[in-house]
Amino acid sequence: MDSLFTPSSIAVVGASAVSGKIGNTILTNLQSAGYKGELFPVNSRGGTIGGLKVYKSISEIDHPVDLAVIAVPRDAVLCALNDLIKIGVRSVAVLSAGFREVGRDGWLLEKQISELAEKNSIYLLGPNCLGFINTSAGINASFASGTPLTGTTAFFSQSGALCVAVIDWALANGVGFSKFVSLGNKSVINESSMIEYLGNDPETKVILGYVENITDGRNFMAQAVKVSMKKPIIMMKSGTTAAGARAASSHTGAISGSDQACDAAFHQAGIIRVDRLEELFKLANAFSCQELPLGPNLGIITNAGGPGILAADACGESSLRMPSFSLSTIAELQPMLPGYASIYNPVDLLREADAARYCKAIKLIGLDPLINSVLVIVSPSDKMNLTEVAETIAACASEISKPVFCCLMGRKNSEAARSIFSEAGVPVYDFPKQAVRAMDSMYKYAIWKGRASRTFETPDRDYDAAKEIIDSALRSGRSELVEFQARDIVTAYGLPSPDSDLARSGDEAATLAKRLGFPVVLKIASPDIPYKSDVNGVWLNLNTEEEVRNAFWKITAEAQRLKPDAYIAGCLVQQMASKDAREIIIGFRRDDQFGPLLMFGLGGVYVEVLKDISYRLAPLSVEDAAEMVREIRSYMLLKGVRGGEPADFDAITDVLIRMSCLADDFPEIYEAEFNPVLVSSDEALVADAHMTIVKLSSGSKESGLNIDDDLSKEA
Amino acid sequence: MDSLFTPSSIAVVGASAVSGKIGNTILTNLQSAGYKGELFPVNSRGGTIGGLKVYKSISEIDHPVDLAVIAVPRDAVLCALNDLIKIGVRSVAVLSAGFREVGRDGWLLEKQISELAEKNSIYLLGPNCLGFINTSAGINASFASGTPLTGTTAFFSQSGALCVAVIDWALANGVGFSKFVSLGNKSVINESSMIEYLGNDPETKVILGYVENITDGRNFMAQAVKVSMKKPIIMMKSGTTAAGARAASSHTGAISGSDQACDAAFHQAGIIRVDRLEELFKLANAFSCQELPLGPNLGIITNAGGPGILAADACGESSLRMPSFSLSTIAELQPMLPGYASIYNPVDLLREADAARYCKAIKLIGLDPLINSVLVIVSPSDKMNLTEVAETIAACASEISKPVFCCLMGRKNSEAARSIFSEAGVPVYDFPKQAVRAMDSMYKYAIWKGRASRTFETPDRDYDAAKEIIDSALRSGRSELVEFQARDIVTAYGLPSPDSDLARSGDEAATLAKRLGFPVVLKIASPDIPYKSDVNGVWLNLNTEEEVRNAFWKITAEAQRLKPDAYIAGCLVQQMASKDAREIIIGFRRDDQFGPLLMFGLGGVYVEVLKDISYRLAPLSVEDAAEMVREIRSYMLLKGVRGGEPADFDAITDVLIRMSCLADDFPEIYEAEFNPVLVSSDEALVADAHMTIVKLSSGSKESGLNIDDDLSKEA
Repeated sequence: MDSLFTPSSIAVVGASAVSGKIGNTILTNLQSAGYKGELFPVNSRGGTIGGLKVYKSISEIDHPVDLAVIAVPRDAVLCALNDLIKIGVRSVAVLSAGFREVGRDGWLLEKQISELAEKNSIYLLGPNCLGFINTSAGINASFASGTPLTGTTAFFSQSGALCVAVIDWALANGVGFSKFVSLGNKSVINESSMIEYLGNDPETKVILGYVENITDGRNFMAQAVKVSMKKPIIMMKSGTTAAGARAASSHTGAISGSDQACDAAFHQAGIIRVDRLEELFKLANAFSCQELPLGPNLGIITNAGGPGILAADACGESSLRMPSFSLSTIAELQPMLPGYASIYNPVDLLREADAARYCKAIKLIGLDPLINSVLVIVSPSDKMNLTEVAETIAACASEISKPVFCCLMGRKNSEAARSIFSEAGVPVYDFPKQAVRAMDSMYKYAIWKGRASRTFETPDRDYDAAKEIIDSALRSGRSELVEFQARDIVTAYGLPSPDSDLARSGDEAATLAKRLGFPVVLKIASPDIPYKSDVNGVWLNLNTEEEVRNAFWKITAEAQRLKPDAYIAGCLVQQMASKDAREIIIGFRRDDQFGPLLMFGLGGVYVEVLKDISYRLAPLSVEDAAEMVREIRSYMLLKGVRGGEPADFDAITDVLIRMSCLADDFPEIYEAEFNPVLVSSDEALVADAHMTIVKLSSGSKESGLNIDDDLSKEA
Repeated sequence: MDSLFTPSSIAVVGASAVSGKIGNTILTNLQSAGYKGELFPVNSRGGTIGGLKVYKSISEIDHPVDLAVIAVPRDAVLCALNDLIKIGVRSVAVLSAGFREVGRDGWLLEKQISELAEKNSIYLLGPNCLGFINTSAGINASFASGTPLTGTTAFFSQSGALCVAVIDWALANGVGFSKFVSLGNKSVINESSMIEYLGNDPETKVILGYVENITDGRNFMAQAVKVSMKKPIIMMKSGTTAAGARAASSHTGAISGSDQACDAAFHQAGIIRVDRLEELFKLANAFSCQELPLGPNLGIITNAGGPGILAADACGESSLRMPSFSLSTIAELQPMLPGYASIYNPVDLLREADAARYCKAIKLIGLDPLINSVLVIVSPSDKMNLTEVAETIAACASEISKPVFCCLMGRKNSEAARSIFSEAGVPVYDFPKQAVRAMDSMYKYAIWKGRASRTFETPDRDYDAAKEIIDSALRSGRSELVEFQARDIVTAYGLPSPDSDLARSGDEAATLAKRLGFPVVLKIASPDIPYKSDVNGVWLNLNTEEEVRNAFWKITAEAQRLKPDAYIAGCLVQQMASKDAREIIIGFRRDDQFGPLLMFGLGGVYVEVLKDISYRLAPLSVEDAAEMVREIRSYMLLKGVRGGEPADFDAITDVLIRMSCLADDFPEIYEAEFNPVLVSSDEALVADAHMTIVKLSSGSKESGLNIDDDLSKEA
């Protein structure tokens, strides 16, 4: 993508001499930002603009063109792109609007353009975007007003309005960017390609992004997980609530995946997710100038009680800890402060604290082996020489190899001090909570980066057997696999179930029950009855042959009465769970953007009422599976409370991994649920299973539905 | 307190001619803020300061003095206060530090001062405070640098450092205040007296406060609940986490109550609680210039998709709703926008929106009967005449009787527009989420204000019987009432328990069991064994006389073996719960600051593992009790899931109200727990009860321990 971001020549198609027109602003921005390469304005009227010769047509340009910025009316874009391809352009930014966002005809046009670009290996930004800015190369190929400063943070955004607001905000706050990219409709270049490119961009230390949907979830995760290991990716995804998703889809026509899937994707890919725009930049500030902390232990230095308490509160809500200082630190703090000053954590240097006192405290606490990062709070008093204090803190911070953050209370007369901190690379915040939240994010990212590498295991399974069951069901036009069909897939995937067999008559059921051992469960077996409880089709705890025989007739009769058209295969006779077994639910649903989303929770009310569920995307590593189990609030119930035996942890994760494998093997399975899985201290038995299957159309992708297919059906 | 806030004469004790000294800053601030009354500087050196005659001693002042500001060294404060009393001063602000916050001797001195002030009915602010500012009267009796503008918001703060930061921030943002008060150590005037005063202050429309602890929780709630009905109180309380509470107590020596108690108090008193300082002012802005919305339905108007989605997301996370507009509104929106613009909620006026389009949309949506409040998002574009748009929005907003908020994306060149909004009383925010959160707070406050008045019922109970049991236990030196003692109190308070009686032998147990009806429960009965499970002292589901006899001997033998010194009274024989009964836990704990804190939750793992508990402070109204039950996450389990019968709601609230009454009747009960209470569809039986009792010292207050007593013990 270097031809896009560092082109040696740029054509501006639709250049204009009329101030206020996009084709004029672009040219002005390119010139005023100091672009050093060749510029070729194109406009059928010819003449000159801003001292540059205007080409009457693209074909007239007799030099190689790396990048073309297109700002012509929508209906002229395709033609322009064709002409640009003929002169060998390598990348284009389409600023013109009126595509996918305005409905079907725009969408069709956009599709033609993106296909043409892709066929000719052209990097295409937009359409319907503001363009981009590469500060270090002096390129402002956007119609935003104003060029931000140079910095080490890259920002990309799907929303043009947010680009404008962010540039405004950055100019007002002196914040700089390495690259600034408006993605627009993302018809070729999207968040995945941006992350891949910025991951290799030496000028970018931190990647920020705002998106409303993710174009190709699987590829996005693959790129992000690689880049996250090198540099932090901080992103905001909107459309997270039902209301927001509705607004998002009516805005860009983009289908938003579920928020659980997006959360799982960000988590698994090490992306730091924020839910406020403000926070995006507060975190960027922290990540871009400080090293990651090596542990959770935060030392707080303050000269006022209130802000110290606020910082401690914020710490208590975070994953950071606030240990006592080591004894030797306390021993050295004691003589430098009055007896009533708190010398524990936070240490209160008192209102009269001067530069020397801050210096001593920072060095002591910064070198304390029990402390991993330091927050210095300054509450300016009239007597304080704020500049001197800021210089001292900055100097001391540079001598310490741990992250040091500053919170400067109050904005008045503090600009000089803030500049001192900024120049020294000490992130400075207005309020303690902002500082602590930034430090917390850095610590969490450090944990993610330092985590053990993921282990992916491919379990033994009989793929062909499962395939045969699914294909045969699809051939007979079924969209549901009920228990007595699904359990063969469960078995093919190496998962144990309670001993069970299909009985076709009451006598057969009684014989089977005797063989399996009492007590047993009887369950209706019918491909036409996916929800057995609808027909009262599950009888538990049957203790005698007589009871079993009786139950068989009652169950099948009731099912026949309630579902007269259903084919009733008989009843499944199954061993009862052992008394100490706990019920868990393991399932997956195919997310439109990210593919199979696995879910885990305790059975019954824990999932249904308390929504105590953990989510991860397939393929599941061994570590992901273990995290899923530990992450639910009710995990203690599996570990065993009040002397109960712990559930078989490995058996649970094994079910998770095998289900993940099943989900990846068969795009035909749209969703599946093992409910309940009965877990005791030494096994996990899949006691019931249910799957929804779909016939794959030849062209459809594994990740499920996609918008193009949908729209083309309408055509 | 008018003598404090609108004094006709002020003495400054410790006035100084030396610039930078507090005694000089105070005088300068008083003069420069334009104080019109008489000023009497006092300093033993005499002379003049700032053109004013300096009195050599307090006794020399030959005019009546309303207020004295004391800025002398700590050890001279008591003497000065004595002298001031002699000349009839009515209120004082003690700026001097060195009291409670520096330890025991400072604390003793502070106690003398506050007692002297209280004896002489003097309103004393501080000590260890910055003073106060009353903008409308032109009084800046503080040593803060700078006087904020006049406004309708009052602010008080326990932390001086936050006062300084807030003044700074307010000056930078053009925010005004009616009163601005630094409470310091709160030895006489505290948050309760401030709320009472500000509740009656016609210049104050919104009350903001920051506190680290609440001095007298019961009085605080009583004042706040009255004032909340008239004007909003928005408060931040720090020290909410364990880490923060530790920092708070080491800072001011203030004991912080539990955060659950504080949350319950704020909720019951209608106080809007925030957890970020920024939010305090963002909310104040909303409350001070807009009416409360009459319902949850928010209409969003935007000219850019991204910010609209962000607003919709924020709405989805709030208690607000985003309904579709009415059909007639949609019909009128349609012709004014291109076909591809979203005309649902949020309505997208598109990038080219001008003042006229905004005006039409605001009027349409503002008059839509389905909509209760309107958020207008403006994302400035180069072509937009922002000033005209702002003026139009402000004018349209004034024609609509519903609250209208604005979100203006980006700060650059927007100052003029922001001023237009501010002057028109339209709250303006930088980001959609901030605006929606403010609107959400207003809606929640409107619900609180409009709620049905609380009904307090005093249940019938046998106070004397309960009193006798408690007194007798205290006389015999016990601090625990175990089940077989506590159940008599339960009965005295009119609460049903399962039929049960004490058996002293196995035969007696068997006879009792026969009378009660099988199955029964046997429980160890010993005043020395508060936790029966420690000795395996509860046997459930005993079905025959033989089993009961056998259980009796095993239980008592095991108890004797494990607790050889315990007095074993025998076993309690109790009816088993009915099969469909659900276990709930109802209890209370006496909070140091707020008195009895009642808790409610489902038994077992719901309380212990999932911490699914609701809290309220006694006395409990009927409505509070109902809210407590509905508020837990697992409430659905009581309502009945999967066809289960609903639990007897009234019976549960009856137990809650009777426990609340018990807590208020007997300050001797430090904590109590009914666990389990067995609830079926027609009753709630207290199956086990446990109470911790304490002997009340003659002087101790109902709300439990207090710091003064503690410290005096050390003396």
